Amino acid sequence: MASEYSPVLPLIADEEAGPRVAAVFADIRATRQTDFINNFWRVLANDPDNLERTWAELKAVMAPGALDPLVKDLIYVAISTNNNCTYCVRSHTASSRAKGATDEMLTELHAVIAAANRTNRLAIGLQVPVDDVFS
Amino acid sequence: MASEYSPVLPLIADEEAGPRVAAVFADIRATRQTDFINNFWRVLANDPDNLERTWAELKAVMAPGALDPLVKDLIYVAISTNNNCTYCVRSHTASSRAKGATDEMLTELHAVIAAANRTNRLAIGLQVPVDDVFS
Amino acid sequence: MASEYSPVLPLIADEEAGPRVAAVFADIRATRQTDFINNFWRVLANDPDNLERTWAELKAVMAPGALDPLVKDLIYVAISTNNNCTYCVRSHTASSRAKGATDEMLTELHAVIAAANRTNRLAIGLQVPVDDVFS
Amino acid sequence: MASEYSPVLPLIADEEAGPRVAAVFADIRATRQTDFINNFWRVLANDPDNLERTWAELKAVMAPGALDPLVKDLIYVAISTNNNCTYCVRSHTASSRAKGATDEMLTELHAVIAAANRTNRLAIGLQVPVDDVFS
Amino acid sequence: MASEYSPVLPLIADEEAGPRVAAVFADIRATRQTDFINNFWRVLANDPDNLERTWAELKAVMAPGALDPLVKDLIYVAISTNNNCTYCVRSHTASSRAKGATDEMLTELHAVIAAANRTNRLAIGLQVPVDDVFS
Amino acid sequence: MASEYSPVLPLIADEEAGPRVAAVFADIRATRQTDFINNFWRVLANDPDNLERTWAELKAVMAPGALDPLVKDLIYVAISTNNNCTYCVRSHTASSRAKGATDEMLTELHAVIAAANRTNRLAIGLQVPVDDVFS
Repeated sequence: MASEYSPVLPLIADEEAGPRVAAVFADIRATRQTDFINNFWRVLANDPDNLERTWAELKAVMAPGALDPLVKDLIYVAISTNNNCTYCVRSHTASSRAKGATDEMLTELHAVIAAANRTNRLAIGLQVPVDDVFS
Repeated sequence: MASEYSPVLPLIADEEAGPRVAAVFADIRATRQTDFINNFWRVLANDPDNLERTWAELKAVMAPGALDPLVKDLIYVAISTNNNCTYCVRSHTASSRAKGATDEMLTELHAVIAAANRTNRLAIGLQVPVDDVFS
Repeated sequence: MASEYSPVLPLIADEEAGPRVAAVFADIRATRQTDFINNFWRVLANDPDNLERTWAELKAVMAPGALDPLVKDLIYVAISTNNNCTYCVRSHTASSRAKGATDEMLTELHAVIAAANRTNRLAIGLQVPVDDVFS
Repeated sequence: MASEYSPVLPLIADEEAGPRVAAVFADIRATRQTDFINNFWRVLANDPDNLERTWAELKAVMAPGALDPLVKDLIYVAISTNNNCTYCVRSHTASSRAKGATDEMLTELHAVIAAANRTNRLAIGLQVPVDDVFS
Repeated sequence: MASEYSPVLPLIADEEAGPRVAAVFADIRATRQTDFINNFWRVLANDPDNLERTWAELKAVMAPGALDPLVKDLIYVAISTNNNCTYCVRSHTASSRAKGATDEMLTELHAVIAAANRTNRLAIGLQVPVDDVFS
Repeated sequence: MASEYSPVLPLIADEEAGPRVAAVFADIRATRQTDFINNFWRVLANDPDNLERTWAELKAVMAPGALDPLVKDLIYVAISTNNNCTYCVRSHTASSRAKGATDEMLTELHAVIAAANRTNRLAIGLQVPVDDVFS
């Protein structure tokens, strides 16, 4: 859909990349073990500061820790669904699958997202007071 | 905060519950192994249809499956954060902790939520076209 | 909740109102058949242009037309719930009741809001393609 | 738009439907008096539990009650507009028209949605305190 | 994307415009010094009341004042990004450029939007209490 | 409001700060020329990685550039209003005023935010097709 349109800033090809952009692209390739650089990074490359910041953040935040990288990717899909970001839903569904997400996991993920959106609106709309035990 | 205000419909006490509401309350108590019924269910009890539907959905959706119940609760917190539902953030943070969430897990959860909201807006605002491989 | 805090701009009392603000306040009182001016208008009164524009819009939009004024107020509550605007949920729930909304109507309203939020996220998250017949 | 893309889970054709899915499809056809099953249900059919739950909820919630079914569909369009769900806006605008919504009704609906979004943000951004009478 | 679809109400061509619509179209052309009327106004023209109200509001609100018109357009892009309105992001990015926005300004704009969305979710999700000095 | 509640993670006092947190606190104090550290940073200090990342991002993003720091703070308020983050609206309204924002500027800011939310929903709800010139 957005693919029929030009982005706000141009996609930066490898041969247009300055040294800072080239360094980030190289690290993305090394980290992900693939030559493919998706459009998100090619648009962000118009702003090397933001590109470096964003890649450094994602690399740190999505790494294994107290939570499994796949769990983190599913949380990413959940947020992207609520923000209605088509690009983000599609790219993180793909990366979730690459990390081992099955249809059954994705099915359960979306059942939880749907249930949470349903009860969130009931709590907000009916103005449910916070229980003392949750204060 | 919302706790200074009255809800849109009254909180239904145990002694005001009709048989359908009493049956749901009993099942919540049995399932959760606690006598405590939080305000969300007491407000919802004004509509026995919705109460039954909501409890049946949550009981099914949040049960163990392809995803762990704790993972499901963290996803719930993520959605509640994006919907800015104070009641939901606080109650599901509490239930996450009850299921074993540590401070480190919650810390990583919120770092992922923050990163996803950041990149979602960049993808939307810069109108990044969907890569063919994600189509 | 927000009531513990001062608003961004001060509440304009009747005796502080200039002629343009006084004229809008008088029309609100005449239209609503009450002496009460709620805080929304008293904050907006810091900007007479916006006050005049907003009151003129609401007076026109909420009047009887192809849709009943009560139906319009229920739609207002629905949007306010999704925007999580406590002030708006509470004030339009009150005005809905003043126009005849019963507990049963409000109960059904919130059941529809909850169902719509649930299915909306499924359609977005599962990336359901638009049927040709809806194009 | 989303129509250029494949959904996250495949569309389930009639001949691929197991008995539980077939039963829901049959009930949708009987209830709606049409042979047409739209894509939302065909994607959801990958998860028979969620399919059954969602159809049962919609059938109950959208039935005549204290609110007219057309009013309920207009509320659905309002929520779908605020969630920016293209699929949902288009399908519920279509079902609203099928239930008798005129251009004039839709015009007034969107004028109310627009006005509510406008005033909601003013109340939030200017931090308008809740009046005692609304507490 | 939405461009493959028909809008909810038809686009009103110049020759279909009644006198009230024609007057607004003429004022848009005179104010903007261009013959081009974009689709937003042509769809809104189905409801002359709303067309007049919306154009009057935009003309007043976007005029030079305490804030520069370009700054106002950048704020418009920010809101449109958070509402994920493709039409609005694209049209106001275009009008920002027409008012002098450079790639560097747009780059900084989106870096601020991204940072704000990131920290907003941290404040909400971690339930940060408001400091007394901000009350 | 949230101030009656405990945050999800404790507020870190100066004497509890480890060396990494102390270094960030010192830089916030030096940069802002004040001894005051607001609660946002004290909660974030539970996660030194996120604290360092967030402060480094804000320091870089909010500095003078193609856009004025005050303009950047107004954009921050706009996003915070749409995300309905009370903490963020209040703290960035305060910082906007500290950078010279007048009541008139804040008034115009909120008029633009309100107008944008109004037209965004009309464009989405009426499914206005993107003009070729904006593609």
